[in-house]
Amino acid sequence: MFNKYDVIVVGGGHAGCEAATAAANLGSKTLLITMNMGTIAQMSCNPAMGGVAKGQILREIDAMGGKSGIIADVSTIQFRMLNRSKGPAMWSPRTQNDRMRFAEEWRLTLEQTPNLDIWQDMVNRLIIKDNKVCGVQTSLGVKIESESVVLTNGTFLNGIIHIGEKQMGGGRTGEKSATGITEHLVELGFEAGRMKTGTPPRVDGRSLNYSVMEEQWGDTDGGKFSYTDTKTTLQQRCCWITYTNDKVHETLKEGFEKSPMFTGRIKGLGPRYCPSIEDKINRFAERERHQIFVEPEGEKTVEIYVNGFSTSLPEDVQFKAIRLIPGFENAKLYRPGYAIEYDYFPPQQLDLTLETLLIKNLFFAGQINGTTGYEEAAAQGFVAGVNAHQKVNDKHELILKRSESYIGVLIDDLVTKGTEEPYRMFTSRAEHRLLLRQDNADERLSPIGYDLGLVSEERLQKVKDKISNANAIIEKAKEIKLSTTEANPFLEKLNTSTITHGTKLYNLLTRPQIEVKDLRVMSSTFDTYLTQFDNETIEQAEIKIKYESYFDKELEIVEKMKKMEDKEINPNFDYNTLTSLSKESREKLIKIKPRTLGQASRISGVKPSDITILMVHMSK
Amino acid sequence: MFNKYDVIVVGGGHAGCEAATAAANLGSKTLLITMNMGTIAQMSCNPAMGGVAKGQILREIDAMGGKSGIIADVSTIQFRMLNRSKGPAMWSPRTQNDRMRFAEEWRLTLEQTPNLDIWQDMVNRLIIKDNKVCGVQTSLGVKIESESVVLTNGTFLNGIIHIGEKQMGGGRTGEKSATGITEHLVELGFEAGRMKTGTPPRVDGRSLNYSVMEEQWGDTDGGKFSYTDTKTTLQQRCCWITYTNDKVHETLKEGFEKSPMFTGRIKGLGPRYCPSIEDKINRFAERERHQIFVEPEGEKTVEIYVNGFSTSLPEDVQFKAIRLIPGFENAKLYRPGYAIEYDYFPPQQLDLTLETLLIKNLFFAGQINGTTGYEEAAAQGFVAGVNAHQKVNDKHELILKRSESYIGVLIDDLVTKGTEEPYRMFTSRAEHRLLLRQDNADERLSPIGYDLGLVSEERLQKVKDKISNANAIIEKAKEIKLSTTEANPFLEKLNTSTITHGTKLYNLLTRPQIEVKDLRVMSSTFDTYLTQFDNETIEQAEIKIKYESYFDKELEIVEKMKKMEDKEINPNFDYNTLTSLSKESREKLIKIKPRTLGQASRISGVKPSDITILMVHMSK
Ligand SMILES: Cc1cc2nc3c(=O)[nH]c(=O)nc-3n(C[C@H](O)[C@H](O)[C@H](O)COP(=O)(O)OP(=O)(O)OC[C@H]3O[C@@H](n4cnc5c(N)ncnc54)[C@H](O)[C@@H]3O)c2cc1C
Ligand SMILES: Cc1cc2nc3c(=O)[nH]c(=O)nc-3n(C[C@H](O)[C@H](O)[C@H](O)COP(=O)(O)OP(=O)(O)OC[C@H]3O[C@@H](n4cnc5c(N)ncnc54)[C@H](O)[C@@H]3O)c2cc1C
Repeated sequence: MFNKYDVIVVGGGHAGCEAATAAANLGSKTLLITMNMGTIAQMSCNPAMGGVAKGQILREIDAMGGKSGIIADVSTIQFRMLNRSKGPAMWSPRTQNDRMRFAEEWRLTLEQTPNLDIWQDMVNRLIIKDNKVCGVQTSLGVKIESESVVLTNGTFLNGIIHIGEKQMGGGRTGEKSATGITEHLVELGFEAGRMKTGTPPRVDGRSLNYSVMEEQWGDTDGGKFSYTDTKTTLQQRCCWITYTNDKVHETLKEGFEKSPMFTGRIKGLGPRYCPSIEDKINRFAERERHQIFVEPEGEKTVEIYVNGFSTSLPEDVQFKAIRLIPGFENAKLYRPGYAIEYDYFPPQQLDLTLETLLIKNLFFAGQINGTTGYEEAAAQGFVAGVNAHQKVNDKHELILKRSESYIGVLIDDLVTKGTEEPYRMFTSRAEHRLLLRQDNADERLSPIGYDLGLVSEERLQKVKDKISNANAIIEKAKEIKLSTTEANPFLEKLNTSTITHGTKLYNLLTRPQIEVKDLRVMSSTFDTYLTQFDNETIEQAEIKIKYESYFDKELEIVEKMKKMEDKEINPNFDYNTLTSLSKESREKLIKIKPRTLGQASRISGVKPSDITILMVHMSK
Repeated sequence: MFNKYDVIVVGGGHAGCEAATAAANLGSKTLLITMNMGTIAQMSCNPAMGGVAKGQILREIDAMGGKSGIIADVSTIQFRMLNRSKGPAMWSPRTQNDRMRFAEEWRLTLEQTPNLDIWQDMVNRLIIKDNKVCGVQTSLGVKIESESVVLTNGTFLNGIIHIGEKQMGGGRTGEKSATGITEHLVELGFEAGRMKTGTPPRVDGRSLNYSVMEEQWGDTDGGKFSYTDTKTTLQQRCCWITYTNDKVHETLKEGFEKSPMFTGRIKGLGPRYCPSIEDKINRFAERERHQIFVEPEGEKTVEIYVNGFSTSLPEDVQFKAIRLIPGFENAKLYRPGYAIEYDYFPPQQLDLTLETLLIKNLFFAGQINGTTGYEEAAAQGFVAGVNAHQKVNDKHELILKRSESYIGVLIDDLVTKGTEEPYRMFTSRAEHRLLLRQDNADERLSPIGYDLGLVSEERLQKVKDKISNANAIIEKAKEIKLSTTEANPFLEKLNTSTITHGTKLYNLLTRPQIEVKDLRVMSSTFDTYLTQFDNETIEQAEIKIKYESYFDKELEIVEKMKKMEDKEINPNFDYNTLTSLSKESREKLIKIKPRTLGQASRISGVKPSDITILMVHMSK
């Protein structure tokens, strides 16, 4: 009943949606199979996108022609650029989103994508021939052939939901879990593991007393993820901040003996950096309070997401404790928080393309690889979708470098080091984070999207224009000189030392106290000149001028490491021939199959001396 | 963790939503418990509301202050008044709806309802004391106390989904079934049964060839269900009609040996009047073709509902057969059709208030009572919600008469006669359908809504104005006389006999060929007079003039039957004291506990002679 597809994507979550649209937009005949067409692109947990390091990922996806940034933009009910007071490498766009709009927009986007079919069903087996995947088999017994398969099962594989001492099967609350696949993959030789994540209770916003909380509005001048022409039409909403306290903690502790985490009922490891409230109390016993972000779930709904209060304690304990938080005295719960345990596949079993090492043309993306977060899932989905298409069409692989993107860091980390707990992106994971900024994701990655065919000529031209315009601004700033009398009154006001002779705007701008907007006041010539450019371009020039020296140093480091990173290792290289390698290094190298010497050097357990041996061998 | 509620409603479907809002709006502290807050008010099957007899029900719900009509209106993507060419008793409003908007609007309505809390959880037990329900217990182990409980579990109780030879647990596709309640109720002494219903496959609208189908647009002059000030803002969409043919039928037959219905795997009885396509082929073998309505699922989605093609044949058979329908040659399936079997409780176990006879303050409403259809469910939900509130507050019961509403017919039928197969409303079920029109639901029922406190003074006044204005128009039509020269040229054009002497507009209007709009052309006085009234009022006057004699006759019959209908039987009456009753009649009467002699007379198996015995006894 189905013709053969080029790419089958299993799962309609963040990873699956990106994978399916990427492959289809590249021209692959693509089928997205998902268990329930009514729950496509659900935000399983918080109704928000982006944030520190994650916002950068979203802009990267967008720069290459992925869709998550666009969907997030049109469903935005609050935008904030986090960390604006820090250096530009830390600036991180984040949106609060309307949960229903987000899912609906993805659904409509999928529907409008040419080459993309959708089928509602549960995949429970793969069809494999000669170690190559050739299709899937579903719970209805349908067999569908394809050249490649991308698995993006999220938290659904043998999912078990925990609340206090209760547990029940489910992929998310109210949804069935997916069975069959794990067992099947294990039979095929894959190693599976178990992880857990959790979500806070949701409350009726009408029952909260906002007057005792701190208001948190979005940026007044808007902002968004996509470099394309997106716009939200939704009314923007306020969030609030409040805090837990001793009493809340004491009350929560009463539930510890029934906690599925502390009693060992949950076997899977949870995300250390996205801990449950009971985890936080337990691990940071000295902290008197924890921040709680009170976030609306949409433009019109009164449902509130209690960010920071993720928990799987018994629901009555959740309830008692939440009511002790200022503003929550009369809180009514809509849904309890819960934890979910699910199967994942340690990602060292993957190539940097996200293809599995064991089965050809089979790709894994998203939470199934041990990550957590919509952005991490979407990024992997995009890469896997692209690579599935490229592989089927004998085209070049998409492997992003650590020095050019967070997505490169993400995938290299996963594949090279694996992860013991749900992997979440942080800026600290990127050694070159100064270069991986939200403001230059277009510059870094649009050419790659263009080469793939996912970014239009016109869009690429816009990026080129932005770069050349920013450079023109920089040149202009080097051209215009202010005299002492022109500059000094302003400099005094700005609390920065005065000048003793004519000075270029460029030089003034390198001072931390001075911004472009100040220079516009000091020099009407500059001000007039800038009117022809949009804010993003001007900001880009400003960032480049202010941080050029740092960027240059970072680029030098990248250049130095390039030797290692560019040194490719033949994937069929037989490490057993290198008898001088230590046993552990050899085993790890054989397992991970690093693509480059750089990747090999990051494998934990592979000794530097062994890397030298490899290097010497390769330069022979 | 919960305070005691007045009313707990279990289930957030059409019945549950109406029950919860009705009870809460009346002032009861109400809790709606539903398994998944993300699937509140799902249209499990077709994205449409109203239709023959069902449209009337929606207007009745609206007239009393229920919400389904309003929700349907704001989510309308096409409105049609069916049967306009027939008499006004047959006119039936029907909308095509945006599935997502419909559910979202209900959700937002619930959220905005004062006194109404929501809790996401599965109820699996009731708390009973002394044959009175005192609360519920959930799968999380939470116990919640209440004065009354309304069960509206829909198709979820031990639901099993069938597609060909496959079967899986589920309350709807992708959703878990609800367990525990049936077994618990059976323990308590309730009788349970099994029913089934089905849904057609959904297809990708982009894959259809509409050029070979008949277009079906909505009415150009709009129209809606609610008597309040509702309006859709959605873009209106077209539907299409196509037909099955011999080849389709032959192909479907190939799947019969795997059909869960024909092989006996499905035990429950399905809706005879909403049959699956395999049923239609089987039962109406002589029919060469069946109509297929091709209906969009929403304003923007390309998903198409294939109305008329409900099936639980194997998905490959569905696929092969559907592609033989003109316009479907390249159809791509999104989701297969399926059948679902579920538990219901034969409704003879209920009082006319929808309270169970066995357990006090426990109400059942919706599909759990063996009905099918959103409108039937919503109507019962409304009545049960109202009665739960009234009972708890010692206020009068809401029992609608057969002569005043379809809802009265529905509930009386269910409670008095029960149903062997999913009960669906038809105009033919109402003996007084001439009186139960969509145009006068406000006149019939707004006073009842007002007495309850669900309809505002202002709204009631509007109804009264409509009535008096319509009467004024009628009087005016009796006043204005046309001379032969004024009238005859027009009458000739309208193909109706000319007049020989001055004649009243009123008399002209009783002719089938003449409508108000014709009279407006003939008489500028009348035309000018009418400008002060809205269309509904003018239509009302027209209907009354045209059909007054029929209505009067019907009212006479109602009057005659009133004696029986008004003759109340003491609910504690001991039929065993009437030794002359036949055994079967006695058993039936004891079981059903009819409220009136009228109701008693409708119980199947109760002999007319026994009714006479009862009557004689009661008049003593
Ligand atoms: C309770 C909970 C709490 C979470 N908390 C956080 C948090 O605090 N912070 C954070 O960053 N992230 C959190 N997450 C994780 C976040 O939701 C995921 O990282 C993200 O949704 C992963 O996207 P995905 O596409 O990989 O999978 P998912 O979004 O889980 O989507 C998987 C999709 O695949 C479908 N599917 C699964 N198996 C099959 C099959 N066999 N056949 C067909 N379809 C199938 C499912 O129906 C679903 O559509 C949480 C998730 C859950 C469930
Ligand atoms: C596959 C299918 C095909 C159908 N086909 C037709 C058709 O052709 N024509 C037609 O007129 N009608 C059809 N229907 C019926 C129509 O959908 C129902 O009549 C209508 O939805 C019934 O409304 P309800 O409120 O009684 O129940 P539902 O709409 O089924 O809602 C029940 C609600 O209760 C919740 N729930 C159930 N058990 C529990 C529990 N223990 N605890 C908490 N919550 C619970 C569920 O989550 C759900 O929200 C079909 C239904 C299905 C599923």
